[in-house]
Amino acid sequence: MTQKTWNVYLSGEIHSDWRERIIEGTKAKGLTVNFTSAVTDHDASDMVGVNILGNEEDNFWRDRKASGINSIRTSSQIKAADLVVVRFGPKYKQWNAAFDAGFAVALGKPMVTLHDAELDHPLKEVDEAAKATCRQPEQVVEILSYILS
Amino acid sequence: MTQKTWNVYLSGEIHSDWRERIIEGTKAKGLTVNFTSAVTDHDASDMVGVNILGNEEDNFWRDRKASGINSIRTSSQIKAADLVVVRFGPKYKQWNAAFDAGFAVALGKPMVTLHDAELDHPLKEVDEAAKATCRQPEQVVEILSYILS
Amino acid sequence: MTQKTWNVYLSGEIHSDWRERIIEGTKAKGLTVNFTSAVTDHDASDMVGVNILGNEEDNFWRDRKASGINSIRTSSQIKAADLVVVRFGPKYKQWNAAFDAGFAVALGKPMVTLHDAELDHPLKEVDEAAKATCRQPEQVVEILSYILS
Amino acid sequence: MTQKTWNVYLSGEIHSDWRERIIEGTKAKGLTVNFTSAVTDHDASDMVGVNILGNEEDNFWRDRKASGINSIRTSSQIKAADLVVVRFGPKYKQWNAAFDAGFAVALGKPMVTLHDAELDHPLKEVDEAAKATCRQPEQVVEILSYILS
Amino acid sequence: MTQKTWNVYLSGEIHSDWRERIIEGTKAKGLTVNFTSAVTDHDASDMVGVNILGNEEDNFWRDRKASGINSIRTSSQIKAADLVVVRFGPKYKQWNAAFDAGFAVALGKPMVTLHDAELDHPLKEVDEAAKATCRQPEQVVEILSYILS
Amino acid sequence: MTQKTWNVYLSGEIHSDWRERIIEGTKAKGLTVNFTSAVTDHDASDMVGVNILGNEEDNFWRDRKASGINSIRTSSQIKAADLVVVRFGPKYKQWNAAFDAGFAVALGKPMVTLHDAELDHPLKEVDEAAKATCRQPEQVVEILSYILS
Amino acid sequence: MTQKTWNVYLSGEIHSDWRERIIEGTKAKGLTVNFTSAVTDHDASDMVGVNILGNEEDNFWRDRKASGINSIRTSSQIKAADLVVVRFGPKYKQWNAAFDAGFAVALGKPMVTLHDAELDHPLKEVDEAAKATCRQPEQVVEILSYILS
Amino acid sequence: MTQKTWNVYLSGEIHSDWRERIIEGTKAKGLTVNFTSAVTDHDASDMVGVNILGNEEDNFWRDRKASGINSIRTSSQIKAADLVVVRFGPKYKQWNAAFDAGFAVALGKPMVTLHDAELDHPLKEVDEAAKATCRQPEQVVEILSYILS
Repeated sequence: MTQKTWNVYLSGEIHSDWRERIIEGTKAKGLTVNFTSAVTDHDASDMVGVNILGNEEDNFWRDRKASGINSIRTSSQIKAADLVVVRFGPKYKQWNAAFDAGFAVALGKPMVTLHDAELDHPLKEVDEAAKATCRQPEQVVEILSYILS
Repeated sequence: MTQKTWNVYLSGEIHSDWRERIIEGTKAKGLTVNFTSAVTDHDASDMVGVNILGNEEDNFWRDRKASGINSIRTSSQIKAADLVVVRFGPKYKQWNAAFDAGFAVALGKPMVTLHDAELDHPLKEVDEAAKATCRQPEQVVEILSYILS
Repeated sequence: MTQKTWNVYLSGEIHSDWRERIIEGTKAKGLTVNFTSAVTDHDASDMVGVNILGNEEDNFWRDRKASGINSIRTSSQIKAADLVVVRFGPKYKQWNAAFDAGFAVALGKPMVTLHDAELDHPLKEVDEAAKATCRQPEQVVEILSYILS
Repeated sequence: MTQKTWNVYLSGEIHSDWRERIIEGTKAKGLTVNFTSAVTDHDASDMVGVNILGNEEDNFWRDRKASGINSIRTSSQIKAADLVVVRFGPKYKQWNAAFDAGFAVALGKPMVTLHDAELDHPLKEVDEAAKATCRQPEQVVEILSYILS
Repeated sequence: MTQKTWNVYLSGEIHSDWRERIIEGTKAKGLTVNFTSAVTDHDASDMVGVNILGNEEDNFWRDRKASGINSIRTSSQIKAADLVVVRFGPKYKQWNAAFDAGFAVALGKPMVTLHDAELDHPLKEVDEAAKATCRQPEQVVEILSYILS
Repeated sequence: MTQKTWNVYLSGEIHSDWRERIIEGTKAKGLTVNFTSAVTDHDASDMVGVNILGNEEDNFWRDRKASGINSIRTSSQIKAADLVVVRFGPKYKQWNAAFDAGFAVALGKPMVTLHDAELDHPLKEVDEAAKATCRQPEQVVEILSYILS
Repeated sequence: MTQKTWNVYLSGEIHSDWRERIIEGTKAKGLTVNFTSAVTDHDASDMVGVNILGNEEDNFWRDRKASGINSIRTSSQIKAADLVVVRFGPKYKQWNAAFDAGFAVALGKPMVTLHDAELDHPLKEVDEAAKATCRQPEQVVEILSYILS
Repeated sequence: MTQKTWNVYLSGEIHSDWRERIIEGTKAKGLTVNFTSAVTDHDASDMVGVNILGNEEDNFWRDRKASGINSIRTSSQIKAADLVVVRFGPKYKQWNAAFDAGFAVALGKPMVTLHDAELDHPLKEVDEAAKATCRQPEQVVEILSYILS
């Protein structure tokens, strides 16, 4: 029995090293996983709309231009994913992470959430739709190691 | 040409009267719209799991029991909706609102967002997927009045 | 906000009065729910194939004729259901109940399971896919009362 | 005319060597089939939840944690399968096997069942949805050999 | 438990009274079934294309014009059906009946076939996909009576 | 055999009376058809975005605001339609009509086109996907009369 | 611009060399096409059920066993196909070919039919759903050569 | 994190070099993108029906034969695309481009439009459904470069 290469989409927080810890941990175990993610360079992501399509006076449309281009990438990656991991950090609104979670669940994708216990109550609807709630990135690595065994 | 009765799901903030203003405004215009929503009684919603299924020591599982029952209602209502309105208020995390938005969009439901301009930047991915972004509940009423004309 | 009439499919055990307790309890609360179910007359269900289509020497084909006709009814009812309740009793294999559960979940239907704690371990995969696990039919009535409020 | 590599999911009984007999028999015939399956190490599977995500006092939640992680693997494998083989042995409830069967059928996957004649009657609804009912693993090998010819 | 009104599509042979026998038999039993069917007036059906859209020299295009209009009706009726009954008589090619059968099965509609035993062998692929194979229209009535009980 | 009420979406040209001729012709024949359509008041449709959501300096975003609101209505109506009629007149680009046609066909909706012969060549890809191509609105009425008989 | 490898399913008549002419013609043009098909050895196909699963007294069930196994192969191949070619010869009922055609069309697969003009009238419903009707296998080769250019 | 190879379908205008500019620009940046497109040789495309399937007196059917064969290619390519780029030039009706846009959007494919500002108003419904509107092919290359980074 050989496993397919799993596609895992990593959604959410961009201000800590959780993606690297999952990717490195997976590599250290010799697992072949293909990770995808939104562009995590905050400025590049915010400005991509006006950088490519031209300037906008109004911030609302400046954001719209950027988020339109970014959604080409993220919606395609989520649709191709076998597993979606959604990380919520202690700061910021992170509504795009919760949006990704709802989007993935409606498509029938299994989802794992990753956040501290202090966020359990506001995240209860998201966690309810998750297959597991992890506290540390290494637990996500353990799950991948188990399901790819 | 007669319009079907539209099903409109109202998601998000439960601490202001935006739902009432939309429902009353729609009624005042003589429009026949069927509104649905999560249970908006905060305590009833939080405690429904243990109230019906029995107590839990651990808050995580207490929340899980409640959110499981609540999602029977909300997922069914979103699937039956012709339009989903998602409201973000100035307070709280409101991740369930963003989750509902992602869920609705993945199902191909048209969505309208409702929030102040100060939330535009953190909501840019959600607004990108919306057909319109309103500032006031009365604008939602105007949209319903127009599309039901 | 008025609720649609919910379609609730009742699957599983036919040797106790759990269906009646749910139906009567729901009626007592004044809820308008449309319940559906397989034919629960055990002999009529087993013999429907040969009764209508003609006798079979071989029990395998006798059963096949019956289950073919029964599945016209049950697959159609599950597809039309807003909620599927699956009951496991203390006796018999009840594989059709677990089959119904998997069928419902793959279609995205919310499911509630109903069984004693002693069956928790063998039912762990079914319960994982459920929105709630009840011990008494009256708890199902409570859930219906809540989500239809 | 060259055949694609078939993905075949093997569901059910873990206490006999039926998986090995199918895999070895297929290999002996020189067929290229990719087999997948749940983790069949009973203890590893039961304890994976608490092993990775932390201990639970309550057996119900201990099982839930395990079955959540296991379903990431099994639901993904069933969705990727071209054929699902479901084995029922003489012992245990095996409700997860019947659940897998219902899940697969609702997704439109062809299914083959594998069990003794004494289980025909309780499995009549599952067999009705199957393309073939085998008594011996070698018959499954014969079917694969034929459809891959 | 009240049954929905079932939509039953009657496909195939137009030269015998099998439709009438099913419709009358169902009515005699007091069942509320909504039957649909292609236009069964042979000449009206063949000529509808040129009658409405204008003449054609070439028979191939004359037939195409008719079958385009007829398929608006039949594809819509099959999509709305809860059950599809396909009748094969002793005469003519009746490829449209087999086409309807394949179309219905791919959409997940339960199908019942109705034909004499002498057609069993050439219809084996169609019957394999059917929930029941009847010899007489009255057996279809019996099935409807049972599943609507 | 009684027909359901058909939902027919009328897409395209707003500068001639083709919609009225179809609606009146259908009514004259006593057919019960439910017609839907985009808002056909050209100015109301163009200005709805800024009228409800506030002014825009840039015409591109003014149009975007309007087309977002209009698509709530049209996408919902096309999804609910049993038949889509697309009219191309002799003037203007009418790209929204061709867009509606592609949208409807991808959803599996039967489509009828309505245009003069001089537009046959540029419309060959749209007509290929149509069940019928009419020259006069009265031919659409004839088709409805036939399929509703 | 490089073309993917197309999967083409060849359905229908097994008593002439049309499959070989398409496969050889395609090879001669240097096109890389992956052809699939039912097992075309008539006796092997008819007897596969009893050969693998054991004898049956009744011809109906003997056929059912064979067609169950055959449909594992054909349904999987049609679902994987980019194009379905359906051949009707001058002899036999060939209802499985028409069934395959309906099945393919309901799944949104483009279909090409291949038959003589004398079969045009009985095949009008099948041809209506086809993208092209060919008279000679070499025309199918030409179509493949064009769309793969 | 490695990117999959993206499939990008290029729809629309065939009288300027926009396809070449996108393909060459993408190659110059070292991106691995698989581009697909309709046959862009105007005469080959228009005459393919009669060239392969035989002559037609009537231009309508001559066009139908060609567009049937062309749609085998284009519908298959759009279904396989991760991104659809639709170009509208200053001349001709280009209804097939708008049809492709609607078809792609209904399938949930992200779309980018490419046209001059003077076409903004007639294309407002198409642009509303697009993730970005570009003026120059080089902007499409920039978007591909960004989402493939």
